[in-house]
Amino acid sequence: MGQQHQRSPLAPDSFPKLPGLPGLKIGVAATGMKYTGRPDVMLALLDPGSVIAATFTKSKTRSAPVDWCAENLPAGDVRAILVNAGNANAFTGTRGMRDVRTTASAVAKQTGCRPEEVYIASTGVIGEPLDAAQITASIQSMIQTAEPDDWQAAAQAILTTDTFPKAASATARLDGRTVTINGIAKGSGMIAPDMATMLAFLFTDAPLPARILQALLSQSVDRSFNCITVDSDTSTSDTVLLCSTGAKRDRPKGLRTHRDPRLEGFAKALDKVTSALSRLIVCDGEGAEKLITITVTGAESDIAARRIGLAIGNSPLVKTAIAGEDANWGRIVMAVGKSGEAADRDRLKISIGGHAVARRGQVVPGYDEARLEPHMQGRDIQIKVDVGIGKGRATVWTCDLTHRYIDINASYRS
Amino acid sequence: MGQQHQRSPLAPDSFPKLPGLPGLKIGVAATGMKYTGRPDVMLALLDPGSVIAATFTKSKTRSAPVDWCAENLPAGDVRAILVNAGNANAFTGTRGMRDVRTTASAVAKQTGCRPEEVYIASTGVIGEPLDAAQITASIQSMIQTAEPDDWQAAAQAILTTDTFPKAASATARLDGRTVTINGIAKGSGMIAPDMATMLAFLFTDAPLPARILQALLSQSVDRSFNCITVDSDTSTSDTVLLCSTGAKRDRPKGLRTHRDPRLEGFAKALDKVTSALSRLIVCDGEGAEKLITITVTGAESDIAARRIGLAIGNSPLVKTAIAGEDANWGRIVMAVGKSGEAADRDRLKISIGGHAVARRGQVVPGYDEARLEPHMQGRDIQIKVDVGIGKGRATVWTCDLTHRYIDINASYRS
Repeated sequence: MGQQHQRSPLAPDSFPKLPGLPGLKIGVAATGMKYTGRPDVMLALLDPGSVIAATFTKSKTRSAPVDWCAENLPAGDVRAILVNAGNANAFTGTRGMRDVRTTASAVAKQTGCRPEEVYIASTGVIGEPLDAAQITASIQSMIQTAEPDDWQAAAQAILTTDTFPKAASATARLDGRTVTINGIAKGSGMIAPDMATMLAFLFTDAPLPARILQALLSQSVDRSFNCITVDSDTSTSDTVLLCSTGAKRDRPKGLRTHRDPRLEGFAKALDKVTSALSRLIVCDGEGAEKLITITVTGAESDIAARRIGLAIGNSPLVKTAIAGEDANWGRIVMAVGKSGEAADRDRLKISIGGHAVARRGQVVPGYDEARLEPHMQGRDIQIKVDVGIGKGRATVWTCDLTHRYIDINASYRS
Repeated sequence: MGQQHQRSPLAPDSFPKLPGLPGLKIGVAATGMKYTGRPDVMLALLDPGSVIAATFTKSKTRSAPVDWCAENLPAGDVRAILVNAGNANAFTGTRGMRDVRTTASAVAKQTGCRPEEVYIASTGVIGEPLDAAQITASIQSMIQTAEPDDWQAAAQAILTTDTFPKAASATARLDGRTVTINGIAKGSGMIAPDMATMLAFLFTDAPLPARILQALLSQSVDRSFNCITVDSDTSTSDTVLLCSTGAKRDRPKGLRTHRDPRLEGFAKALDKVTSALSRLIVCDGEGAEKLITITVTGAESDIAARRIGLAIGNSPLVKTAIAGEDANWGRIVMAVGKSGEAADRDRLKISIGGHAVARRGQVVPGYDEARLEPHMQGRDIQIKVDVGIGKGRATVWTCDLTHRYIDINASYRS
C-alpha cells in the first residue's frame, strides 16, 4: 500500500457478528510479501463433500489463479480456498500458472485432498511474479491455527487498498430447516465487474448440489456485483466463490432447477448477502465520500436498465458533480443519452432525493435547486430515472469521484 | 464559466495563420447570455451554391439544434452557420426546437435564404431554456461586421470551458488546382465522441458535391474525432460540419465515389485538419497536463484496435497513473482485458516512450523502470500495444486525469 488510507467515511460502525457455519475453518498468516505487520494470506478449509459455484471476470487478460479456478469448477468439489493479497499473479506468463500449481499442490498435500479441490485467488499488483515459496511456507501454520468462524481475521487478510473489512450474512428456511449464508469480500478500485466481480467468498451450510448453487449464484451476481462500479475499470482477478459445506445433510428431494419454489427463501437470502457485500465495496470505493444509488425504470429490458444505470454511474462528470454536492441533472440526461439504450428524451423523468427534477423531457415547472441542497450534502444520494420506454428496471450503486481517488491512484501501484 | 481557467500547459504557442477561403465571411457578437466581456455567438455566411456534409452525436438525448441540422442535411445546401456558447439548448422539451426555428428564420430573413439552409449549433449548460431573443438581437450586427477569414474571433466565440481557441488548416491539389481546408473546433470536457464529435466547423473551396464531401467527412471523422476521449462522456450536442464554397468552380468530371484516386490528396488534407483539431481538443482536455497517444496494433480489425485504444484511454486508473508520472503498465494490461476485444494475453507486447516494457505476456527480462522516468515526466506520453491477434490498428488520443479535472467539474454547471 505504501501509504495508509484513512477509513472510508461510508464504512459501517463495526464488523458484523456472523453466525457459526458448520464444516468450515479459517486460518490467516502474514507472509511479508508486500505488506508488513498484517496478515495477507487466508486459507479456508472445508469438510469433505463440500461443493462450489463461482463466477469470474470476463477480462481477456485474466490472471493465472482465475484460469486455474475456471478449469476446476466443472467438477464442483472444493476442500480449500487460498487467497493472498498484494500480488495478483496476473500477466506473469507461464510462470504464473506454475506458481498456482505449486501452492495448490502444497495445500493439497498438507490437507489430504486433490490439488483440483484447492481454489486460489490473488489480488494486488499486476505483472510481478509471485514468490510461491513465501505462500507455501505459511500453509502449515494456517492449518494449525485455523478456527471456525474467524470471519473478521479472514476479511482483513484479503484487503489491498480497502480501508475496512467487509462481511455480510443472512439465513433462510430451506425444506423445513434454517440454513446460513456468510460472505466476505474485498474491493476498492478497479471495480466494474462484468458478469463477475471482485473477490468475494460466500459459504453456506445449505445442502444443495453444485449445479443448483451455480444457477442461484449467477442470478444473484447479476443483480449485485454486476450492478456496482467505482471507476469503470474491470479487474483481471474478479472472483466470487460460493461453497456449501452441507453435503452431509439431506438434500431436498427431487430438486431439479434453481427455480424450484422451495429455493425462494435461500435465493432471497443469497441476494441479501451479495447486495450487502456489493454496497460495502462501493462504500469503500477509492476516495468515496458519498454512496450513490441509481434506480432506472421504464427501460426496454432489465439489461438495458442496468446499462443505463452504469452509464450514469460511470460518468466522471456525474460523479464529480455529486462530489461537489451539485444536483447537476443535465449530466444525468447526457449519461442516459450516451448509454446507447432506447430512451424517449421527451418522456424522460428524473428525481433526486425524492424531489422531481425533470419530466416530459424538460425541467419541472418551478424547479428550485435549493430544495435539493440538504440531500446533496448527505452521504446517501438517491437518483431515480424513468426513460419512458418499457418495463425494464435495475438498481446500480456507485460512489462519487473525489480528489482522494486521484491521490490514491497516482501513487499506488496496482 | 464562473471561474476563469488557466491556459492548458499543452496549448500551442500561438493561433495559426489560416489561408484565405473564398466565399465565406464570419461575424461574432456578445449576447451576455452567460458570459460577460467576450463574444459568445458566431455567424458564418456562405455564398449561394455552398454545400454541406456533417456528422452528429449518437446520443439518444441529443439537443434540438442537432435534431434540426440532421433533418436538413439530406438537401446538402448551406448558407449560414449560427453557433452560440453557454447554453446547449438540450433537454429543453418542445420549446427547444421552437427556439431553433426562431433563430434560423431570423438569419434566413436577414440574409435572403431559406431557414433550412441555416445550420445551428449550441454548446453549454444542458436543461436550461435558451433565450432566443438574445441571439436574434445580435444577428444584424454580425451580418454587418462579418469579415472574410476572421478565424481567431470565430474560434474564440464558440469556447466554453476551453482554455484556448483551436484551428487547423491544410491544402491539397485537386484536379490540377490548389484547394484549402480550414477548420475550427471547441471541446474540453464531455469528450468521448461516438461516430461524431464536439463542435467543429470545417470549410473548403474544393468544388465537390455534398454526397462526396459526406463520404470523405465520415471516413475522416472515424480516424480523428472518434479516436479521442477526455472523460468517456458523450455530449448531447456533438456536431461536425464541413462546408464547401467551391460550387461556382468546375467540379472534377466524372467523379462517382469518394474513393476516386483524384481525391487522395484532398482526403489526406482533410485527415490532417480533423486530426489536428482532435488533438487540440485533447490538449485542452479538462485538467490535462499530458497528451497521451495510444497506438494499438495486432488487433482483429481496425475497429477492434480503436475499442482497445479507447479502453486504455478511458481507464481512470491508467490516466491517474500517468498524471502521477508512474509507468504503471499493469493497468494497461487490465484495460486491454476489459475492452472485450480479442487479445492474446501470452503474446501481448507493450512499450512506453519507445522502451519495451512487456512481451510474450510478461514483463521483459531486466526491465528497469528508472529508464522510463524522463519520458513519464514529459508532456507527450507514447504508449504502444500489440495484442498479437491480427492486422487491425488504430491511434487514440487522450489526456491524463488530474486534480484540476475534479476542480473544474465539481463546480462548473455544464
